[in-house]
Amino acid sequence: MTDFNATRAMFDLPEGLIYLDGNSLGPLPRTANHQVDALLREEWGKQLIKGWNACGWMDTPRRIGDRIAKIIGARPGTVVIGDTLSIKVYQALAAALALRPERSVVLSDTGNFPTDLYMAEGLLKTMGGHVELRLVEPHEIEDAVDDSVAAVMLTQADYRSGRLHNMRSVSTAAHAAGALTVWDLAHTAGAVQVRLDEDGADFAVGCTYKYLNGGPGAPAFIYVAERHQHDSTPALSGWLGHEQPFAFDLDYRPGAGIDRMRVGTPPVIACAALDAALDIWDMVDIRDVRSRSIELSECFIEEVEHRCPQLTLASPRDPQVRGSQVSFEFEEGYAVIQALIANDVIGDFRAPDKLRFGFTPLYLSAEEVIKAAQILERIMSDRLWDCPEFKTMAAVT
Amino acid sequence: MTDFNATRAMFDLPEGLIYLDGNSLGPLPRTANHQVDALLREEWGKQLIKGWNACGWMDTPRRIGDRIAKIIGARPGTVVIGDTLSIKVYQALAAALALRPERSVVLSDTGNFPTDLYMAEGLLKTMGGHVELRLVEPHEIEDAVDDSVAAVMLTQADYRSGRLHNMRSVSTAAHAAGALTVWDLAHTAGAVQVRLDEDGADFAVGCTYKYLNGGPGAPAFIYVAERHQHDSTPALSGWLGHEQPFAFDLDYRPGAGIDRMRVGTPPVIACAALDAALDIWDMVDIRDVRSRSIELSECFIEEVEHRCPQLTLASPRDPQVRGSQVSFEFEEGYAVIQALIANDVIGDFRAPDKLRFGFTPLYLSAEEVIKAAQILERIMSDRLWDCPEFKTMAAVT
Repeated sequence: MTDFNATRAMFDLPEGLIYLDGNSLGPLPRTANHQVDALLREEWGKQLIKGWNACGWMDTPRRIGDRIAKIIGARPGTVVIGDTLSIKVYQALAAALALRPERSVVLSDTGNFPTDLYMAEGLLKTMGGHVELRLVEPHEIEDAVDDSVAAVMLTQADYRSGRLHNMRSVSTAAHAAGALTVWDLAHTAGAVQVRLDEDGADFAVGCTYKYLNGGPGAPAFIYVAERHQHDSTPALSGWLGHEQPFAFDLDYRPGAGIDRMRVGTPPVIACAALDAALDIWDMVDIRDVRSRSIELSECFIEEVEHRCPQLTLASPRDPQVRGSQVSFEFEEGYAVIQALIANDVIGDFRAPDKLRFGFTPLYLSAEEVIKAAQILERIMSDRLWDCPEFKTMAAVT
Repeated sequence: MTDFNATRAMFDLPEGLIYLDGNSLGPLPRTANHQVDALLREEWGKQLIKGWNACGWMDTPRRIGDRIAKIIGARPGTVVIGDTLSIKVYQALAAALALRPERSVVLSDTGNFPTDLYMAEGLLKTMGGHVELRLVEPHEIEDAVDDSVAAVMLTQADYRSGRLHNMRSVSTAAHAAGALTVWDLAHTAGAVQVRLDEDGADFAVGCTYKYLNGGPGAPAFIYVAERHQHDSTPALSGWLGHEQPFAFDLDYRPGAGIDRMRVGTPPVIACAALDAALDIWDMVDIRDVRSRSIELSECFIEEVEHRCPQLTLASPRDPQVRGSQVSFEFEEGYAVIQALIANDVIGDFRAPDKLRFGFTPLYLSAEEVIKAAQILERIMSDRLWDCPEFKTMAAVT
């Protein structure tokens, strides 16, 4: 049984702040400073170039990949870290398409995160335009898979509503039509019980700065099912994915297994912070996280619906098909979020009208969730959002 | 006039170590710990998601790009950082090829760094195979440019010998044939006086962990000449290169200018270390670095040729066509480098037989260079390299 008091004690959270935005950027693990400082001072500072071997830097992508694999239902040797999520989407989709060269469609949905669609656009254009990106509504995906589809590319949890796709049934539908799946786990890794191997995923990618708490701009990860590793051709064929990077051959030969999905030099400093975050995940059973996150989300929905009749739930009501976030709609949603932030409750806004809140049991208590709903009630009932300073848009994330 | 005693004092170098490998990984700037710690504690820890706006994280790629631009002869607004060098090669080459869609050749040379060639291979394969990668010997480049060539893709300084391409004359030859240039500055940014704007470069990429001292796995950069920015189509069309990333449109529209070469979420933690390194570059005139680096290199060649007749110079003798590194050939070169490392002189080895030494005036003195040559003399004359422990190959970088 996970001890959530113990995990909470591992984070450095500002006193009095109620943080409902761990679905955008997780908080600072208490040991991150120490681990990064040791990396800088003891490893980079003292070992310099020798650190690549002496300190194991070169193996970091695979080592951390295995740590993440445990959290997303993947066996060791199926995940490596590196690059950003956008790059990993490109890489995974290119590999899937190379396995289905005779097919002409990438199927995705309008609930996908835009950068996934943008990266697909860029890839398909680079490929010369003979493969088309076809978007349907989220509920139409399974019916839309046919034998023209090379890959079904989806974000498992909708970034706006938290609606979950059923990985197993989408996989089954895709495979029945001979298509492959590419899953973006940005809003599910560390939030729900992902079972990549068991649910038949072919490729998956994700980021580590949301529920995994790796820090701003922490590296992404890619998963390739064991059965595809040997036949996957890396489009981003960088030297660290080469069979022998330090032979300095003029021709590329892909490395064994998941290692071929490595590209360039690993982001060693960022990895030290990510390791600190993953140490906390070693204390955790993801099943406990999921059940506690459902408790917290249900509590929030109940409190807000009771206290704030002006807001409309924009997430699925059934917690089984909802990730670890809850959204409400309100025309002046942006101003409401600004008013909440001014009152030390951090949620975020997604255009045009969504207030979005993430529930992260590792450091969030039921008391805080109730208090957040109370503050939201006061903002709504007293129209505290209705002032010019809360209506001026800044760049938001 | 640059004060090299002052710059040396800004680095944390192990006592007694002679570091001739700054061309692979620069040393730790003294203020890096503090800057990274402040980023973690004060920004990530206290601001959390608000850091993207409140702490300027979102603007980091452009802000640091402008800092690097100054070092490589580029005007503000032509450089952004992000990703790895391999990814940036792919991005730059794809953009160049999209500007010359009717042409069928990428021209490069056998002295290019392998990952550049691998990434080109991956790109050309992804594009469907109608563009060919043609490799010639380095001295044949200018004669080999013809009107089939879309892009001339070169590393400015050969990673093995330090031989420099003449950016201006290659640019002139390329442009005369209607081709574009893609320069990899891995071994020249911070080492020699690069003049991207003045010498007519079209695209350039580089890394920040070598002469710029940004730390292991520090982010890469990309330069696009102002005249191409508006027409450059990003193949890696990520959301942070979008005109309005937070509008969350379903379709990609490239951002203005160099911003469209941004891809995913910026590596904020790594950037704090890189900023610390660039603070030192603010104290420096690159012309002084270049002339001092020539003095140090000339001194080393003279000392080694005098003391070690067993070694053969494998770099150009003319310092004007040599970067900031010097290589010597010796059949048992690997063992010699291991023996040097055991004696606290850090150089590196490049297969099959090159001993490679980098000269970095920011923290290297003439006394150290002479002492390194003396230690090398003893290793050669006493055959100290000739023992089994120095002959066992490990992965090297």
